[in-house]
Amino acid sequence: MKLWQKDKTSKKEVETFTIGRDPEFDLILAPFDVTGSMAHAIMLASINLLTAEELEVLKKGLKEIRQEIAEGRFSIAPGVEDVHSQVEFLLTERYGDVGKKLHSGRSRNDQVLVDLKLYYRQAIRQTMEEVEKLFALLLRLAEKHKGDLMPGYTHTQLAMPSSFGLWFGSLAEGLAEDMYLWQAAYALVNRNPLGSAAGYGSSFPLNRTLTTELLGFADMHYNVLNAQNSRGKTEKSLSFAMAATAGTLNRLATDAILFMNQHFGFIRFPDELTTGSSIMPHKKNPDVFELVRAKTNQIQSYPQTITLLLTNLSTGYHRDLQLLKETIFPAFEQLRDCLSITQLMLENISVQKELLEDEKYAYLFSVEEVNRLVLEGMPFRDAYKKVGLDIENRQFSPGKRVHHTHEGSIGNLCLNEIQQKMEGITIDFKPVLDAEERLWKD
Amino acid sequence: MKLWQKDKTSKKEVETFTIGRDPEFDLILAPFDVTGSMAHAIMLASINLLTAEELEVLKKGLKEIRQEIAEGRFSIAPGVEDVHSQVEFLLTERYGDVGKKLHSGRSRNDQVLVDLKLYYRQAIRQTMEEVEKLFALLLRLAEKHKGDLMPGYTHTQLAMPSSFGLWFGSLAEGLAEDMYLWQAAYALVNRNPLGSAAGYGSSFPLNRTLTTELLGFADMHYNVLNAQNSRGKTEKSLSFAMAATAGTLNRLATDAILFMNQHFGFIRFPDELTTGSSIMPHKKNPDVFELVRAKTNQIQSYPQTITLLLTNLSTGYHRDLQLLKETIFPAFEQLRDCLSITQLMLENISVQKELLEDEKYAYLFSVEEVNRLVLEGMPFRDAYKKVGLDIENRQFSPGKRVHHTHEGSIGNLCLNEIQQKMEGITIDFKPVLDAEERLWKD
Amino acid sequence: MKLWQKDKTSKKEVETFTIGRDPEFDLILAPFDVTGSMAHAIMLASINLLTAEELEVLKKGLKEIRQEIAEGRFSIAPGVEDVHSQVEFLLTERYGDVGKKLHSGRSRNDQVLVDLKLYYRQAIRQTMEEVEKLFALLLRLAEKHKGDLMPGYTHTQLAMPSSFGLWFGSLAEGLAEDMYLWQAAYALVNRNPLGSAAGYGSSFPLNRTLTTELLGFADMHYNVLNAQNSRGKTEKSLSFAMAATAGTLNRLATDAILFMNQHFGFIRFPDELTTGSSIMPHKKNPDVFELVRAKTNQIQSYPQTITLLLTNLSTGYHRDLQLLKETIFPAFEQLRDCLSITQLMLENISVQKELLEDEKYAYLFSVEEVNRLVLEGMPFRDAYKKVGLDIENRQFSPGKRVHHTHEGSIGNLCLNEIQQKMEGITIDFKPVLDAEERLWKD
Amino acid sequence: MKLWQKDKTSKKEVETFTIGRDPEFDLILAPFDVTGSMAHAIMLASINLLTAEELEVLKKGLKEIRQEIAEGRFSIAPGVEDVHSQVEFLLTERYGDVGKKLHSGRSRNDQVLVDLKLYYRQAIRQTMEEVEKLFALLLRLAEKHKGDLMPGYTHTQLAMPSSFGLWFGSLAEGLAEDMYLWQAAYALVNRNPLGSAAGYGSSFPLNRTLTTELLGFADMHYNVLNAQNSRGKTEKSLSFAMAATAGTLNRLATDAILFMNQHFGFIRFPDELTTGSSIMPHKKNPDVFELVRAKTNQIQSYPQTITLLLTNLSTGYHRDLQLLKETIFPAFEQLRDCLSITQLMLENISVQKELLEDEKYAYLFSVEEVNRLVLEGMPFRDAYKKVGLDIENRQFSPGKRVHHTHEGSIGNLCLNEIQQKMEGITIDFKPVLDAEERLWKD
Repeated sequence: MKLWQKDKTSKKEVETFTIGRDPEFDLILAPFDVTGSMAHAIMLASINLLTAEELEVLKKGLKEIRQEIAEGRFSIAPGVEDVHSQVEFLLTERYGDVGKKLHSGRSRNDQVLVDLKLYYRQAIRQTMEEVEKLFALLLRLAEKHKGDLMPGYTHTQLAMPSSFGLWFGSLAEGLAEDMYLWQAAYALVNRNPLGSAAGYGSSFPLNRTLTTELLGFADMHYNVLNAQNSRGKTEKSLSFAMAATAGTLNRLATDAILFMNQHFGFIRFPDELTTGSSIMPHKKNPDVFELVRAKTNQIQSYPQTITLLLTNLSTGYHRDLQLLKETIFPAFEQLRDCLSITQLMLENISVQKELLEDEKYAYLFSVEEVNRLVLEGMPFRDAYKKVGLDIENRQFSPGKRVHHTHEGSIGNLCLNEIQQKMEGITIDFKPVLDAEERLWKD
Repeated sequence: MKLWQKDKTSKKEVETFTIGRDPEFDLILAPFDVTGSMAHAIMLASINLLTAEELEVLKKGLKEIRQEIAEGRFSIAPGVEDVHSQVEFLLTERYGDVGKKLHSGRSRNDQVLVDLKLYYRQAIRQTMEEVEKLFALLLRLAEKHKGDLMPGYTHTQLAMPSSFGLWFGSLAEGLAEDMYLWQAAYALVNRNPLGSAAGYGSSFPLNRTLTTELLGFADMHYNVLNAQNSRGKTEKSLSFAMAATAGTLNRLATDAILFMNQHFGFIRFPDELTTGSSIMPHKKNPDVFELVRAKTNQIQSYPQTITLLLTNLSTGYHRDLQLLKETIFPAFEQLRDCLSITQLMLENISVQKELLEDEKYAYLFSVEEVNRLVLEGMPFRDAYKKVGLDIENRQFSPGKRVHHTHEGSIGNLCLNEIQQKMEGITIDFKPVLDAEERLWKD
Repeated sequence: MKLWQKDKTSKKEVETFTIGRDPEFDLILAPFDVTGSMAHAIMLASINLLTAEELEVLKKGLKEIRQEIAEGRFSIAPGVEDVHSQVEFLLTERYGDVGKKLHSGRSRNDQVLVDLKLYYRQAIRQTMEEVEKLFALLLRLAEKHKGDLMPGYTHTQLAMPSSFGLWFGSLAEGLAEDMYLWQAAYALVNRNPLGSAAGYGSSFPLNRTLTTELLGFADMHYNVLNAQNSRGKTEKSLSFAMAATAGTLNRLATDAILFMNQHFGFIRFPDELTTGSSIMPHKKNPDVFELVRAKTNQIQSYPQTITLLLTNLSTGYHRDLQLLKETIFPAFEQLRDCLSITQLMLENISVQKELLEDEKYAYLFSVEEVNRLVLEGMPFRDAYKKVGLDIENRQFSPGKRVHHTHEGSIGNLCLNEIQQKMEGITIDFKPVLDAEERLWKD
Repeated sequence: MKLWQKDKTSKKEVETFTIGRDPEFDLILAPFDVTGSMAHAIMLASINLLTAEELEVLKKGLKEIRQEIAEGRFSIAPGVEDVHSQVEFLLTERYGDVGKKLHSGRSRNDQVLVDLKLYYRQAIRQTMEEVEKLFALLLRLAEKHKGDLMPGYTHTQLAMPSSFGLWFGSLAEGLAEDMYLWQAAYALVNRNPLGSAAGYGSSFPLNRTLTTELLGFADMHYNVLNAQNSRGKTEKSLSFAMAATAGTLNRLATDAILFMNQHFGFIRFPDELTTGSSIMPHKKNPDVFELVRAKTNQIQSYPQTITLLLTNLSTGYHRDLQLLKETIFPAFEQLRDCLSITQLMLENISVQKELLEDEKYAYLFSVEEVNRLVLEGMPFRDAYKKVGLDIENRQFSPGKRVHHTHEGSIGNLCLNEIQQKMEGITIDFKPVLDAEERLWKD
């Protein structure tokens, strides 16, 4: 059953093909659809397209449906086209024609757009919670292991002394710096498209400023055609942000797999977090990290998937946009899974102590030794030659204390500064949460 | 000739293969390399790794080289490995061993990183100038054509009345909203990596806060390993921002090609901006827009190219990163070319007036007509039925005045608000320009 | 429950994360797993690792399970790790220890590999059936509409006379030429990996030639490490083939959407295949083609998704490979959906007759006119000038008969040759079907 | 100067923007353009659009130009639009109006198409030569090192005994199996588009069968619109083939970098092929392999770049297609560079002998030991338990001889079979070379 449509039936195959996975996604959108309708109803009353009484009825009806959704009692009835129709259908069934008035000054297009924006806001918030937990854990690990040295590599070759503290800290700051892209995505998400109708606005005297405020949006997409065109563009921005965080997790996982290799042997995890074999006691397979590596690669491919969906399309709505949901909805879940399983792993990590005492790491200290001699007054050129000769003559036995003092170095990890950097970039969700509370409170 | 290396010669084929296109890119980096060295020298003096006299000599030498670069008199001598070596070589040749001291506490890795960051800052600034010019032009065109109606499409089907003002305005706001990603990229670019050496810091007591200030960076990459890992990540963020702007230009070009098609016939350009044929007078080929469409697709593919270069790489420097330049350096130029040629086209655009007077567009107004009747008091359901019947009976002759009043609609384009939105997102380059001026002034 | 593993329990979160969507995919693989086991059992008996009696028991058991799968009575019991374990579990439960012997000389790795190869063979076969149906339909449409002229475009500008026959024919030949990539994919799919164990072979004297023959593979991956490395590479080849066919369907859909636009008005479909609105009688939304366009773009993004999963991975098995299934399994279904819905649409297409009679298409014939004069003996330069002048003086009224005779032209569509081309590239599945029949017959 | 165009000058900026990098690519196409023209001229004479005398003049002229190109004396004069115009210009300048007749029955579109096809044929041939050299080298190395054991990894964890012979052999067979995609690409390349004109054919009675034969094409694109649409599709197929070979090289390079890491220490190269440092004698940086890894990732990104250029474009020529050259032309060179530098490296590789004698590798042999006991008659379950207990009690001291006999295993590398597989897939260029020789001989 489609509302607002000539009675004409689509062929079954066409129906199946065009609906696709929407029923599954529509259930996710249900609570946001009701929220968007609440704001729209209040606005319609403010411009006299609904009477005060009608508004009260709709508020009551929407609250009921919201409750049903929250309690898992909401579903889309067989034959009903989508979540929007289901909500309207319930309202009309329960309260009569007033239910149909809710669609005035609104099109399916901007209704979906606002649902998506509200959903993305929440999904970003939930993702940020996982990012912040992992970030905090990495900082704790960096602090805990700031004195535990390990080899540092360039070209996958042993290069210089590093430390586990430096490694954990680098991942923490990496996660923090990914937040710029989340801010960018959020700025695009957090703009009101409601009132743009099918992309060409409405001849009703809508008050878009009011719905912007009611829904807690920071601003609106002014131009209604641009509001329509923001579909896809918003998802692309989200995919960029996800790809950034995925990139940092990918590096973490790649490092972990290498460091778990027996030739390295830098880190260990409890048996219950790895897989092994009783006749290959040497094996501790890093399945979790391999799958994090793979899943973060999947996520990193989504910008391209989305770009392909959008490119060379002219202005205005195209049904193609429906498929964005198939990429971006699962992506949020995949990313959160990667974040939380990585946390679980790192909460249980053990690092190999005193690694650099092994003789094979002696040459890591050659640059240190040159610099030490320079700081003691020997000209650089002489110091360099002396260390080179000592090594050649196998007389090189460096002190293995690493004394780095500058900002961000092994001896001065600047964890507080990194913490502050993160705080400076974190998205503030309070205005949004406050607005939602106000909208539903009375 | 490589500085700092054992005298061992690389095989010619290896040399050729590994150097690749770097000589061409190194010339682009030359002025930024000298700037980075200037800040590094001042910092070295501040921690007594250079005497005041040595600093004066180096400042003099670097100013000379900067002047030579500006005047096009700088080149990398045959046999010299790269721009960094060339600068050091010139300083040493002219002023003796002090030239070599400049490398203390610095590695090729952070030297390249700082060069890239300084170059990207400038390239972003130049790109933003083009974006802002096009944005301003689109706003002017929106204002000029706010009364010129055109059809609006959904599903590539005639849908509702639109206007050229709405179209131009949507592109302007689109360009503005792309700026969030440029801000994100800039935030990552505008952080100091100097002092991170090869990614593991230095045992010299460097003052990274000082170089951050001298070079006008907003902040630093604290963790030195994270500073190293920012290579690639920075370019990925840049590619996202470019892809966003490219996406908006792609839509503009796609629309323009469609609107120039003879069946549409909505816009025209002077002969000197299109190509044609004397025996096909109907043809006005939109070559420029086709190539903008294609080039913006190239640019939109770069996030994936860069992601492939980076993924599954462990922490620390890999030579792979060198190839980032082959993608990102030309990309800036390609994007600026697209921006400026689009400006040229739009400065010369003519739009078809009174388009909607044609009878074939009558049905565009059916929703308008329903809404008009509703606003006059007729129940929506009745209004809808009446319009439907009028159409069926071929008695539908709608008024063609479109009276939209809400924010962002055809009748209320909110160009000032869009202008303000842009101003709120624009990157402020003043601190950077001021810092550079201070660095070189005395 | 994992077979062959130390009793050690994985943490619940790790279990959930690492299993992912495998249970759903494992059910798809079930019949192929049983087939692979059948061949393996026969081979084990041939080298005396099973007795003749044991083989008979296993054959009986495998046939039963095969039957259960066919009748939908097979499922993976709670706590059983995967399809391979379930099959082994059932055999052991029903027939005792002989069930465990089936795993001799085989590893989970080559067992999965062979399952995938067998599944892909079938999925390719089913896909080819849809391709061939669409191909045949396009040829029929080309024949039917070979006389129906339409405009041909270059640069999206009216250019030359074309015909619906030419358009349909071009899509048919396009589909045929995509088959080269399907052949390439099939060649990689249709190679036996069984016996490669975990990628390093086995010390049992396996007879891989025998299993190759039993399973109807055209050849084997000889090198066992290469057999392991073919995982991922096979899926990449499949994604290339899918992307090729998707590219052709994308073009078809893109054309159809344009030709359905009211300004063009070249093709029409019954109401039940499009969507519309009673107050916008002009609208016939091409939702099906928009979703075909979008889905074929999704499919075209999979080569990149798969490449990202695989790149920079060292030789040997990595758990990352598990995720290939999430991309490639649904892709087959998506592609077949696009193929069959496109058939449904084209079976119902109507084309606009006598299109080129409209005066606005006169200039399409200018090149024809020049050529006609040349063939009548006028020098090209003079003919060209005469037509140019006629057009300028508005005296150009060309004959609208198009007389093209050369191979592949409007007047000579070479449909038979295209049919033969297709037949020459079609994959021959007979050897495979015969082998399977033989394997299970007695 | 553009031939065949109304005298109307393009604005300078438009000219610069639209020409792009074509002049550089046109020089590459020059010899192929002359070849295509030779065949076209002979065909025109065969249908009496040229007299026998005119044909002789044109043959003479084309041979001269061909000679000039071969000797590096050909260039595109300032103001001449492209290579096609330059050739025509030279012919006309030297031999009068007959030069212009060459364009009869041909459009710029099919002329470019045929040039590209001929160029790709040659570029494929040159690439195949490099592939075959590397393939042969890998087979030689596999034979040479078939007795040199090394550890085999799964999950990047020590797993089973492998050998250098197995590793080299896997890469050889990998290269061979990539050839299926090269065959597919070649099949698409090696089809004649000449005579398709601008995609809508010609009213001249062209003989396309004749030009197909003269140019040595295996077949033609029959449908002229399909011939036009093959542009882009051909390049996409080429990019798939390149991506396949690049994927195999990427794996080789990834392995090599890991095996050169000091913790592994499996392979070594002479100093002149790596980079190092006198004070870090432990460092042998694998720059060449890092850049091969990176370049093969670039190449693997091209399918997506090309797909983005093509998707959602309607049938018929679009100027966008010009940009394909920017991706695919350099790609051939990049791939050949990677192939030849990899050869250089492998010609100089040393492998570490007796690797597995080290005690740390003992557990690699646990599966071998279980299987050995089974083959001696012990039930698998008992054998497994015994080995597990021996390991637990630290009494496990396996024999380190690996006795694998089955096809493709360490002890039976099947190098001959792999060689034969390669020979079976190799493209036969003889027909093409013969045709070219015939075309120019008299």
